[in-house]
Amino acid sequence: MSQAIPTSYRRVVLARRPPGEPAESDFRIETVPMPTVGTNQVLVRVVYMSLDPYMRGRMRDVASYAKPVGIGEVMEGGTVGEVVASNNPAFKPGDLVEERLGWQEYGLSNGHALRRIDPSLAPISTANGILGMPGLTAWFGLYEIGQPKPGETVVVSAASGAVGQVVGQLAKLSGCRVVGIAGGAKKCAFIRDELGFDAAVDYKAGNDLEGALRHACPNGIDVYFDNVGGPVTDAVIPLLNFWARVPLCGSISAYNAERPEMGPRLLWPMVGRRVTMRGFIVSDFAPRFEPARRAMGELVRSGRVKYREDIVDGIERAPRAFIGLLRGENFGKLLVRLGPDPTTMGR
Amino acid sequence: MSQAIPTSYRRVVLARRPPGEPAESDFRIETVPMPTVGTNQVLVRVVYMSLDPYMRGRMRDVASYAKPVGIGEVMEGGTVGEVVASNNPAFKPGDLVEERLGWQEYGLSNGHALRRIDPSLAPISTANGILGMPGLTAWFGLYEIGQPKPGETVVVSAASGAVGQVVGQLAKLSGCRVVGIAGGAKKCAFIRDELGFDAAVDYKAGNDLEGALRHACPNGIDVYFDNVGGPVTDAVIPLLNFWARVPLCGSISAYNAERPEMGPRLLWPMVGRRVTMRGFIVSDFAPRFEPARRAMGELVRSGRVKYREDIVDGIERAPRAFIGLLRGENFGKLLVRLGPDPTTMGR
Repeated sequence: MSQAIPTSYRRVVLARRPPGEPAESDFRIETVPMPTVGTNQVLVRVVYMSLDPYMRGRMRDVASYAKPVGIGEVMEGGTVGEVVASNNPAFKPGDLVEERLGWQEYGLSNGHALRRIDPSLAPISTANGILGMPGLTAWFGLYEIGQPKPGETVVVSAASGAVGQVVGQLAKLSGCRVVGIAGGAKKCAFIRDELGFDAAVDYKAGNDLEGALRHACPNGIDVYFDNVGGPVTDAVIPLLNFWARVPLCGSISAYNAERPEMGPRLLWPMVGRRVTMRGFIVSDFAPRFEPARRAMGELVRSGRVKYREDIVDGIERAPRAFIGLLRGENFGKLLVRLGPDPTTMGR
Repeated sequence: MSQAIPTSYRRVVLARRPPGEPAESDFRIETVPMPTVGTNQVLVRVVYMSLDPYMRGRMRDVASYAKPVGIGEVMEGGTVGEVVASNNPAFKPGDLVEERLGWQEYGLSNGHALRRIDPSLAPISTANGILGMPGLTAWFGLYEIGQPKPGETVVVSAASGAVGQVVGQLAKLSGCRVVGIAGGAKKCAFIRDELGFDAAVDYKAGNDLEGALRHACPNGIDVYFDNVGGPVTDAVIPLLNFWARVPLCGSISAYNAERPEMGPRLLWPMVGRRVTMRGFIVSDFAPRFEPARRAMGELVRSGRVKYREDIVDGIERAPRAFIGLLRGENFGKLLVRLGPDPTTMGR
């Protein structure tokens, strides 16, 4: 499995902090020399690089649960790749691994956070998706915060996305009525016909989202898994049932805004209906990742949970794909393939 | 203790549903004949009638956790009074009792919800206040949802009000830094100097509430007990710490609005900081009222927790006092005294 290592590679750095929607010019693609592999270090050729909405937050110069990416620094992100050189006894060339190496074609690891992937479980790309951060986000956000009960109605926004598609399918397995909110007829057909959601509501169709949701949720909404915030969430709030739970996973609609946008105040309805909203970050549940990943792996292998990926080729296309992600242009878990996938070569 | 029972009494009914801020003309004061006391019934002369912000919600024709007051029906509310006639073996004339008899000078009870008050614990008016619904609201909202830990910072809005004053003092007893938000210098001095809050922030002073709060909360805010919503809450949200808890007790600022007002969207900051917001109604904790009331009674008797009442005399002044309550014009727990308090007569 040894392969020639080039003398240079490409990476994407943050060129400047966009005030609103990012432009391609906010990123810079650099070609840099291949590093030498130091003591205990592992050199990884990145095969799949993950693009996720949270990355927009890292482009801001604001302290959050993670520190911002600095100007001139490599954009952060999850990656799946192949070890091409190793001075670490725990890894050898050809190993398939996952780590947050960022937007770059090659990355050095000290091995501490490098996780070996078993390609017999599922395609290795899923380590960035359903068996990775987004899948675990769905798992813990739904089960731990949403706490779905059989017969309840679960609504998820960005329902065909990396997290939403998993949330809906897990909620179906919990015996819930599941309604997904997605943009456009294709995505709606996918979650309904392919993933088995009970109903799909197209937030781009018509101008009475609340009415459409009311129609799709005749018994109200018990769990709202929120990925988007903004007007979509505004339409959900009035339909929340007593004792509803709202896992706050993300607020894509707000990520490009310089200041908080204005929207209808939503606190009062939450009082009498005893709604619980709770923000979470998947890493809060890190000690329980492995059993969850195993369980999810079983569900994927048995075909009880499906997933859809949206794969773009070439690191030079990452900035444009990321901008599209924030606009909802992707269809499924967005990945950038930076080079050949050794597990699918020749297939 | 037997006393002459008049042949008629006064009560306040809802005359119409106000679209915005209520006017006195939205209420009607009626004089009606004294009812006859049926089998097992108890006739209570109301001494203190409670005025609370939640009553504004009952004036709306909207299903909530409680059904609305109908047009022409007596306004709902907690009352403290004296039994003046009884066909119920469990009660006798002279008993001091508490029940939700509404805005009226006399009320009939079947005895089921009638609770005898021990006047040796505290003045009987407190059964509408610190030893009643508002005090229990503070107790359960703070302890169960706020979950204050020693050294944490607790902020409470409407801090000199019936609930807020109790929240702050209980949080002090829990070893927290306590900051109250109140309107005007007098209320601020009261919570700081009389009740022992660490700091008071006057939301009517200046126009940088967030800055004033930041100054008062150098370590951020771990618990925000929200009674008001609106711009005051907007100023608190940016200062919430990681893992902050926000018991949603009320949203006074929204009660007079026909539709939800617009405000800055607050969900995104809650995600990364893992904020939990949870609406509650005191009756959720009804099975645990008695031990909480006993504990609060001890705190009041020992002087470790103080309270302030704002007492208005005469049922005819109830509508105006209620309108003022929604404007924040009261100073302490607002009560209307409808007749002589038998425990303080002659003192």
